[in-house]
Amino acid sequence: MASTPAARTTKTAVDLVIYASHVIPVVPRDAVLRDHAVVVQHGCIINVLPREQALEIYKPERVQDLKDHILIPGLVNAHTHAPLSLLRGLADDLPVCDWQTKWIWPAEGEFLSEEFVSDGVVHATAEMIRGGTTCMNDMFHFGKESCDVVERVGIRAVIGPMIMEFPSASAKDTDDYFEKTRVLLEKYKNHEIIRIGMAPHNTSVAGDATLQKVNEWSEKYNVPFNIHLHESASECDDSESLNRESLNCHRSDQKLRPLANLKRLGLLSERLVCVHMAQLTGQEIQDVADAQAHVVHCPTSDLKLAGGVCRVTDLLKSGVNVAIGTEGAFCNNSLNMFAEMKLAAILAKAESKEPTSVPAATALQMATLNGARAIGLGNEIGSIEVGKRADLVAVECDNIEMLPMYNAISHVVYVAGRENVSDVWINGKHVLADRKMTTIDEAQVKADKY
Amino acid sequence: MASTPAARTTKTAVDLVIYASHVIPVVPRDAVLRDHAVVVQHGCIINVLPREQALEIYKPERVQDLKDHILIPGLVNAHTHAPLSLLRGLADDLPVCDWQTKWIWPAEGEFLSEEFVSDGVVHATAEMIRGGTTCMNDMFHFGKESCDVVERVGIRAVIGPMIMEFPSASAKDTDDYFEKTRVLLEKYKNHEIIRIGMAPHNTSVAGDATLQKVNEWSEKYNVPFNIHLHESASECDDSESLNRESLNCHRSDQKLRPLANLKRLGLLSERLVCVHMAQLTGQEIQDVADAQAHVVHCPTSDLKLAGGVCRVTDLLKSGVNVAIGTEGAFCNNSLNMFAEMKLAAILAKAESKEPTSVPAATALQMATLNGARAIGLGNEIGSIEVGKRADLVAVECDNIEMLPMYNAISHVVYVAGRENVSDVWINGKHVLADRKMTTIDEAQVKADKY
Repeated sequence: MASTPAARTTKTAVDLVIYASHVIPVVPRDAVLRDHAVVVQHGCIINVLPREQALEIYKPERVQDLKDHILIPGLVNAHTHAPLSLLRGLADDLPVCDWQTKWIWPAEGEFLSEEFVSDGVVHATAEMIRGGTTCMNDMFHFGKESCDVVERVGIRAVIGPMIMEFPSASAKDTDDYFEKTRVLLEKYKNHEIIRIGMAPHNTSVAGDATLQKVNEWSEKYNVPFNIHLHESASECDDSESLNRESLNCHRSDQKLRPLANLKRLGLLSERLVCVHMAQLTGQEIQDVADAQAHVVHCPTSDLKLAGGVCRVTDLLKSGVNVAIGTEGAFCNNSLNMFAEMKLAAILAKAESKEPTSVPAATALQMATLNGARAIGLGNEIGSIEVGKRADLVAVECDNIEMLPMYNAISHVVYVAGRENVSDVWINGKHVLADRKMTTIDEAQVKADKY
Repeated sequence: MASTPAARTTKTAVDLVIYASHVIPVVPRDAVLRDHAVVVQHGCIINVLPREQALEIYKPERVQDLKDHILIPGLVNAHTHAPLSLLRGLADDLPVCDWQTKWIWPAEGEFLSEEFVSDGVVHATAEMIRGGTTCMNDMFHFGKESCDVVERVGIRAVIGPMIMEFPSASAKDTDDYFEKTRVLLEKYKNHEIIRIGMAPHNTSVAGDATLQKVNEWSEKYNVPFNIHLHESASECDDSESLNRESLNCHRSDQKLRPLANLKRLGLLSERLVCVHMAQLTGQEIQDVADAQAHVVHCPTSDLKLAGGVCRVTDLLKSGVNVAIGTEGAFCNNSLNMFAEMKLAAILAKAESKEPTSVPAATALQMATLNGARAIGLGNEIGSIEVGKRADLVAVECDNIEMLPMYNAISHVVYVAGRENVSDVWINGKHVLADRKMTTIDEAQVKADKY
C-alpha cells in the first residue's frame, strides 16, 4: 500500500473519507459493501469504493476510520411534532378523547409559545441526532422558530407550520396561518437543509376550501402536503355519517370518509403525504397508489392509541411509497427510528399473516429512501450514492447486543438500537462525533425547565 | 444530618443501602417512592424507607447513591432459549417452515454441543444483565452446562432441559432426556439462584404419555411445566384435524387443539406455563383462568413469525397471570425486556381496541412480578418488598431521551431502553456496576468465534 512521494502528489484532495467495515447503501436494496469508503466533498457523496482504492486515490482533509461499524444513510423520520417532546409521558393509557381534551390540548394551550417551540425542537433534534435520524418532517406551530433552531443545529428538515381553522397562540385565524407559512415558503425556497411543507393538521380542523388552498400552494411551491389521515375508525366512520358531535368528524359537508372526500376534491397527488392510514379499504389503497401519494406509517403511535393497524403489506404490493415516522414523543413516547423500523417490519408480518412481508432491507428502505421520497427529497438523500448529500450514520456493531452478526441489514433493523449510533453526519457536517453532539449543548438541553 | 459519635454507634450494620431518587416497588402497583432507600442484608431486602430515615438508622458496608435513577425490581424474562443467541440473525423474513427446517434445525444439528451451550448462555446472560434482566426462564439442551454458567455468572434462572421424543446431541431418547432432567432436579432442589423446570418443547415433539410424565414430575418436584402452546394457527388447526403431514400437528391421537388435549389429560394446573398462546378462543381463556395456569406473552416473536396476537387484555380480565418473554435471539433478534415491555403494552391496546388496556404499571408488573409468579418465584422476587431477594435494576433518567419525566412508571415502560440500565444487583450481588459487568469478561464474550 506504500505509495511513492510522486504518486502521492497525484491524489485528489477531498473534505472527508469515511472508511467502514460495512456500508449499506440501500440502493441496491440488498447490498452490503465490505471494507468500503464513502468520499465526501462539499457535503456531497462523490464516490463509494473499496477501501484500498480510496487509499490510493484520495487525500482527505478529514478521515474517519470505522472498524466494526455499519454505515447507513441517515434515517428519515417522516412524521413528527418535535416540540411535543416537552410533553413526553405527560399522559398515557387514557381514552384518546380524554387524552386529547383533558391533557394535550390544555397543556398546549398553557405552554404554546415561541420559547416552548424553540426549546422543544432543540430537545427533539438532540434525541433524533443521537439516535441516527438526520432528517425530520415536522408539523407544528411557530414554524419560524423551528426553522431557526433547525438551522443552528444543522439537522435536515421539512418544517410544516400547522394550518387550522381555529385560532391559537401561533396564529389568529386561517389566513394568518397561511400568511405565516407563505413567509417561510419564500424564505426557505433554496435553503440547503431546510424545506417548508404544507401541514393542515387533519380534516377535522381544516375544511374543503382550506384543503384546496393548501393543495394549490403545495403545487405552486412544489412542497409536500402533509395531513393526518384515517388515523382511527372514528375519524372515518364519523366523517362518513357526518356525526358533528364527534371530535373526529371532518369539516366537509360531505358524507364521505376523509380520503374519499380528498379524492372528490382532486387533492390526491404525488405531493400528498398521508400520515397514519391505520384504516384503509382495498379501494382506498388503490386510490392512493393511483395518485402516487405517499403513506407515513407510525406504528408505535397507531398501536398505543389503538387507531388500527396500517395495511403496509398491501400498500407496498400496490406500489405505494410507504415511509416511517415516530409521531411526537407526546404519544410515542420516543423519537427512536430504530425501534420504529423494527416494529414496522414485524407488525407488517402479523397484520398480513406473512412472515416474509417487509424483510429487513425493505424496512430500512422505508426508514431512509422512502421517507426521502415522501417529502420530496428522494434525489438528495435516503441512500449512499454518488450525487446524494452526505447524511450518514455509523452503527457500532462490536458489542454484546449486536454479536454475532451474520447479516448486517438484518442487524440494523432487528438488533441495533439508538444506543449503537456512534457518529452522524448531516450534509457532510459531523454533528455527532463519537457519541458527542457538536452543535447542541447537551447539558443545556438537560437543564430545560420542563 | 450530623449525628453524634454516640448516636452513630447505635446504627444497624447492613451489607448495602441503595438510595435512589425514584423507587418503583411494583407492589403497590402504582407507587413511585421519591428519595427512598432499599436496605439489603444477606442478599435480601430488609427495609424500604425514606432516605433520611435510612441515613439515621443504618450503617451500610456498601452504599450506592443513585441520583436521577429509577430503581425497579429486576426484569424477569419468562421465556427464552439462551444458547440460541449464537444464531442471532442467522435467518430472517422467511416462511416459518423454511426458517425452521432449512436454517435453525440444521444449524442446531451442526453446532449443538456442551461448548455451544456454555458459550451461548454466557453471551445471552451478558446481554440480559446489561439490559436489566435479573432472572430468566430458559428452555434448551444441555441443562447441566447452562446451570454451570448461570451459577458462575450469578444470574437467577429456571433452567428447563429440553424434553422431546427425538434423539439429539443432548440425549439419545425420551428416557435419557428425563434422566438428565432428574439429575438436575435433585441437584438444584435448594439452590439459591437456580431452579430446574420441566420443558417439553411443544406438543409436536412430546406425546400424551411424555406430557403426563412431565406433569407428574412437575408436581412431584413442584417446578414449572413450560411448553410452547398455540404459537400458530397451523399448530391449532393441524392438531384439530390430525394432519400428520404438518410439522405443527401434535403427537396425540386426539383430534383436538393442543390446549383442549392438555385439558383432557388433566394437565392444566397452576404449574403450567403456556408460552405464546397467540391463538386463543374465549373458552380456552376461561380454561386457562380456571386452572390458574400462566401465560408467557412473547410479542416480538409472535409478530415476527406471524403466529397471531395473544389476547392479553382478555386474559388479564379473566384473571390469568400473564408474564413476558423475549423468546430466543434466533427469532427476536434481541433479549431486550424493555422493548418487549413497551411492545406488550401497546400491542394489547391495538389488539383489544382499548387504549386504556395494559397501562404502564401493568406492563411493568407483567415483566417483573407476573414473571416471577409464572415460574414459581412469586414469593422470592418480582417486587421491591421487605423479605424479597435483592434483584434490583437502576435505570438512569438524567439523559435527553428520558427527559422531561412526568411519571417514572410511564418512562420505564414507554421511554427507557436497555442502554439506560446502569447498575444491576442479583441476590444482593452487584453484577453490573456503572455499566461494567463484574462476573463476565466482556472482551471474552465479544471474542466468541460464532
